[in-house]
Amino acid sequence: MTEEQVLARIERARRRKARVREERITLSHGSGGRAMHTLIEAVFLDAFRNPLLEPLDDAASLRIGETGLALTTDSFVVSPLFFPGGDIGDLAVNGTVNDLAVSGARPLYLTAGFILEEGFPVADLMRIVESMRAAAERAGVQIVTGDTKVVQRGKADGCYVNTAGVGLLEHHGLGIAHARPGDAVLVSGPIGEHGITVLLARGELDIEADLESDTAPVHELVRGLLAVPGVRGLRDATRGGVATILNEVAKAAGVAVIVDEDAVPVREEVRGASELLGIDPLYVACEGRIVAIADGASAGEALAAMRAHPLGAGAAIIGRIGDDPPGLVLLNTAFGGTRIVDLLAGDPLPRIC
Amino acid sequence: MTEEQVLARIERARRRKARVREERITLSHGSGGRAMHTLIEAVFLDAFRNPLLEPLDDAASLRIGETGLALTTDSFVVSPLFFPGGDIGDLAVNGTVNDLAVSGARPLYLTAGFILEEGFPVADLMRIVESMRAAAERAGVQIVTGDTKVVQRGKADGCYVNTAGVGLLEHHGLGIAHARPGDAVLVSGPIGEHGITVLLARGELDIEADLESDTAPVHELVRGLLAVPGVRGLRDATRGGVATILNEVAKAAGVAVIVDEDAVPVREEVRGASELLGIDPLYVACEGRIVAIADGASAGEALAAMRAHPLGAGAAIIGRIGDDPPGLVLLNTAFGGTRIVDLLAGDPLPRIC
Repeated sequence: MTEEQVLARIERARRRKARVREERITLSHGSGGRAMHTLIEAVFLDAFRNPLLEPLDDAASLRIGETGLALTTDSFVVSPLFFPGGDIGDLAVNGTVNDLAVSGARPLYLTAGFILEEGFPVADLMRIVESMRAAAERAGVQIVTGDTKVVQRGKADGCYVNTAGVGLLEHHGLGIAHARPGDAVLVSGPIGEHGITVLLARGELDIEADLESDTAPVHELVRGLLAVPGVRGLRDATRGGVATILNEVAKAAGVAVIVDEDAVPVREEVRGASELLGIDPLYVACEGRIVAIADGASAGEALAAMRAHPLGAGAAIIGRIGDDPPGLVLLNTAFGGTRIVDLLAGDPLPRIC
Repeated sequence: MTEEQVLARIERARRRKARVREERITLSHGSGGRAMHTLIEAVFLDAFRNPLLEPLDDAASLRIGETGLALTTDSFVVSPLFFPGGDIGDLAVNGTVNDLAVSGARPLYLTAGFILEEGFPVADLMRIVESMRAAAERAGVQIVTGDTKVVQRGKADGCYVNTAGVGLLEHHGLGIAHARPGDAVLVSGPIGEHGITVLLARGELDIEADLESDTAPVHELVRGLLAVPGVRGLRDATRGGVATILNEVAKAAGVAVIVDEDAVPVREEVRGASELLGIDPLYVACEGRIVAIADGASAGEALAAMRAHPLGAGAAIIGRIGDDPPGLVLLNTAFGGTRIVDLLAGDPLPRIC
């Protein structure tokens, strides 16, 4: 966002004045959808309002001294803590690494804050910490400071982890708000694997599927992609899935996002489980997939750059940016119809990350 | 710490190999005392080990590009959320501001991560956020990025807040490991007010006292103090109180810390409540008090610098650094005896911050 865009947004928000209608927090306030957006706008943004927070990007872009930095944070409350393909420790490192990477920063240093429940097995904590160590090593970051709190039994769910991360800003001016009609929309691989894996790992559903979380650090994939001129903005798709990111693009840039359902890569296992669960894979969380907006003329090159990295082997161009209707995401369905893909209302998938 | 000291410490720790004997996490692993130190050394330090983490200072000192930075994090789980003199929101901002300040950094940018329990009143959240806004304004920092998670009812205690902070490192080479025999030990004001206030606010004890939390940002107090040459190291006294900091000084520098009980400023209300509770005010948490180590010749000037700031009006020189016995804190008691003030064993005061 340019400074004028940010200031205009502040002014619009002041006039609009979002309001949380509920008197109490519900799970939907944490699901990445409409209720969460309203909570953020009405409570956090309204109080903390400043031009660095305002873009609500995955990371804030700062300048300290002569150095451009990105700063981000995420808390992880996934249940269960361990699942096929990863655990809360991988998520906590990869999630923050990815928020830095898609902001155009080289991830460097992480903090780690643990909230532990009395009675939590020390062996499980050591397993989580070992995952964090391995994930940090893989992503080339160091965990340099931390904090541990313990709460009484029944005041947490074993272990919650917060990470914050700092990176060196290497690519300036990236932002989904720069999306323009004619741009292409890309996704770096099949969607929804993390969310479905975690849901199935809860063991409450009588579904078996050979699936693993897609949790992974995307910084190298992003580095390759950002070597392509014409890449305008990136986001990593977590809570709320790809559909939420696309809505954020549409609203931030004031454009239409038009997606071809047939073009969206979804593994058969994810599609099958989603159908049984009655959810749309577009809303299911990933933890190692990015959405990219690229100038139409660069789309092929951007796709090739993604596919050149193992984590982008399943990348695809899933749609394009249009000008009408501004602020909305349209899906051309496999059956030939068109429907609006709105922000998620409600909370089908709590505690997925 | 110098680089050699850090490397020596890594080597010693590798040989020593701390071990958590308990199979499950207990409240004492979060109390700031011996169990927490062992957990940190055996689990976190052992896995994440790197020269930036190793000093276990309040904040890590980094260099990114040409810029020296401090980075820190803290989670806040205080119960109750609101108490005389403050709430979890003030603590979350001041705590991180203070960790940056005592590391010699100018606090600049904060992150905010919320873990909310389903059913938490939105009005309480807004009150907490408003406290954070006011505290950030008072401390001259901006909250630039955040995260919100919601967990099911019974999986948290209303609201937990994590903050991480970045500051510009302005004073290099500070560190409690630099304490030398002949140095003076100072505290910036009466101790234990935060911890006793929170305990009493729980309403479980039949004690009334006219007390308020000491939660406050100490960055300006620290700025004045660091204008005095001869100030070697600072810490803010939170969990585990002043006694824990003094033990960290003794161990990090390999020196004896000798404290005069009579010289330690403690308000009558804190002393009275502590006696009734059977706890030593030296172990009770503060949230706006710092411990400073200054060259003996500079002690008077350091004290004057503290007292020149309203938050340091009750500052005092409470003891000195000796050479024997190394690694221990000795208290010359009001009754003329001497006793060892050890790291806290057990968990008399959980969830105080």
